[in-house]
Amino acid sequence: MLSSRKRQSSDDRLDAVFQALSDRTRRALLARLARRPARITALAKPFAMSLPAVSRHVRVLERAGLVARAVDGRVHQCSLTAEPLATAEAWLHYYRPFWAGRLEALARFAETTEADVSR
Amino acid sequence: MLSSRKRQSSDDRLDAVFQALSDRTRRALLARLARRPARITALAKPFAMSLPAVSRHVRVLERAGLVARAVDGRVHQCSLTAEPLATAEAWLHYYRPFWAGRLEALARFAETTEADVSR
Repeated sequence: MLSSRKRQSSDDRLDAVFQALSDRTRRALLARLARRPARITALAKPFAMSLPAVSRHVRVLERAGLVARAVDGRVHQCSLTAEPLATAEAWLHYYRPFWAGRLEALARFAETTEADVSR
Repeated sequence: MLSSRKRQSSDDRLDAVFQALSDRTRRALLARLARRPARITALAKPFAMSLPAVSRHVRVLERAGLVARAVDGRVHQCSLTAEPLATAEAWLHYYRPFWAGRLEALARFAETTEADVSR
C-alpha cells in the first residue's frame, strides 16, 4: 500500500469507518466516549474484556479517525472524534430515497388498509 | 449462535450492514443496483473480477438484507433492498451533534478569521 494515512482516498476512509462500525463492542466504546473521554482501563471495565482486547478495538477506531488518544506517561486518555461519521452519513444519504420511498409507501398502504377496516 | 436470521437483534443487523458496507466493491455493486436490477454476470463485468468473487460479495450483501436475488433457472437477478440502510442511518444520526457541532464551529471560526482579514 502506497497511500499514507494522510492521503487516504474517500474509499479508504469509508472502508475504515464502516469496518470500525461493524462490531458492536466498538460501537459501544464510541457510545461510552460520546458521554466523556476515558482511559483505556476505564473503557475496558464494563466489557468483561482483557485490556489488550479493548486496546485492539480502540486501535481500529483510531485508524478510522473515530478516536483520538492522548498519551501522558502510562495514561492513555481516549476521546471521540466523530467527524469521519459525516462521510459515512453522506454516503448513506444518497440511498435515502430508495428506502424512505419504500417505507413511506408501506406506511400509506397500512393507513389505507386501516381506513378501509374502520369504515 | 442460537439466533436465527429471522430473529436478528438490532446489533446483529448493524454488524452485518456495516460489515457489508466496509468494502468499496460492495458499495459499487449497490450503486450499480440502485440504477436498476441486474444479473450476476452483468454485475461482474465492470469489475474485472471473477464470477465467484462477485458472487461472494453479493452473498455478503444478501446476508445484510441489502440485495434480493430472484433465481429463474440459471439466471440470478439481483436487486437493491435498501431498507436496512435506515437502521445504519438511525445509528449515525445519534452522533450527528458530535460532528455537526464541531464542523459548524470550524466554519464559524473560518468566517470570523476571513472577516478579520478583510477588515
